[in-house]
Amino acid sequence: MIRHFDEELDELKKQLFQMGGLVEEMIHFAVKALAERNEGLADEVFRRENEVNKIQLEIDDRCLKLIALHQPAAIDLRFITSAMKINSDLERMGDQAINIIETSVDLLKQPPLKPLIDIPKMAEIAKWMVKSSLESFIKKDECLARSVLLKDDEVDNLKDSIFKELLELMAKDPKNIVRALDLILISRNLERIGDHATNISEDVVFMIIGKDIRHHCQNNN
Amino acid sequence: MIRHFDEELDELKKQLFQMGGLVEEMIHFAVKALAERNEGLADEVFRRENEVNKIQLEIDDRCLKLIALHQPAAIDLRFITSAMKINSDLERMGDQAINIIETSVDLLKQPPLKPLIDIPKMAEIAKWMVKSSLESFIKKDECLARSVLLKDDEVDNLKDSIFKELLELMAKDPKNIVRALDLILISRNLERIGDHATNISEDVVFMIIGKDIRHHCQNNN
Repeated sequence: MIRHFDEELDELKKQLFQMGGLVEEMIHFAVKALAERNEGLADEVFRRENEVNKIQLEIDDRCLKLIALHQPAAIDLRFITSAMKINSDLERMGDQAINIIETSVDLLKQPPLKPLIDIPKMAEIAKWMVKSSLESFIKKDECLARSVLLKDDEVDNLKDSIFKELLELMAKDPKNIVRALDLILISRNLERIGDHATNISEDVVFMIIGKDIRHHCQNNN
Repeated sequence: MIRHFDEELDELKKQLFQMGGLVEEMIHFAVKALAERNEGLADEVFRRENEVNKIQLEIDDRCLKLIALHQPAAIDLRFITSAMKINSDLERMGDQAINIIETSVDLLKQPPLKPLIDIPKMAEIAKWMVKSSLESFIKKDECLARSVLLKDDEVDNLKDSIFKELLELMAKDPKNIVRALDLILISRNLERIGDHATNISEDVVFMIIGKDIRHHCQNNN
């Protein structure tokens, strides 16, 4: 029996929320492991990656079936093709969290280079961006999508100040170099998560107003 | 008048090839500018970015219309939804080339840190991966897609050896740090381009055999 289109769509939304929640938790535990020097939390990240991968395949499959069986048009079709892109973005955010935890596990084998303040701050913003970009999609909330786009500047500024501080530490003592580079790479991973949330929010605005803001936004930055 | 589905599909393929060609050229000129210390080539990269952005919007629009007007099923539908994802991957590769040229322009203001050998080598492989992943999609060539997946290891190995060498240069003299970090970031950008080509190739295998290899492949690495 073919289920009703709206029911199928609700299922899709639920699955996307579930996936977004897992990705947020992956970011959370990866940075918590680093900041609190608790390697045991690495498992929390890896375990969720398997779930994320499984849900990604299910979402793609669900979207293809929705299009093939129900032949949606206009905003419904845009919603489903956007869901497929967002699905990829979420999975890649999860990959970035994996990169963070892998680098963190290496870092935890060495004494701390410095107390971490800006990286956890960046992680908080990144998690908010993941959550809000997805919420803006599910609720078709253009204003929320636009506030995610604005938040990306904060992430970039934090990353710049992290870079600056760590370059100084590298210059001060060669023994700092490997650890400082690792922290720089982690801040780049967080920046990439912010970029993915930005991509999602741009897709949301496109879906709602049917006008592509992607490259217009870039020109305004 | 609604054009024939196959004609529309041919147009889509042509546009994807055109976009892929532009992205390859962006990578080419970005790394050439760096390796040959020729800042004048930066314009070649930026000019192509505008074209890539324009084509990206056209391809997305074409795909949505193709689905809405022709309601394709099975492999035709998968081809079009894959084209939309590949479109995003190509545009993001272009973004990486932009990152490379921006960092390179900074680097060219300073004396060369070392003769560049591995970065141009990495760029050659990355360009081949872009071209071949796209070709494997257009021609539905599973073998070619799989050879792209194998090539990603070469990129990763080169990146590791670049990291190692540059970390040594950093440790040797603090004056090397900023330039070495810039080269490390450029090699990460090239690695990301390889990752996008890998994503495309995984989509191709999925499209052809209808079985998702994405996370199985990752487990085998």
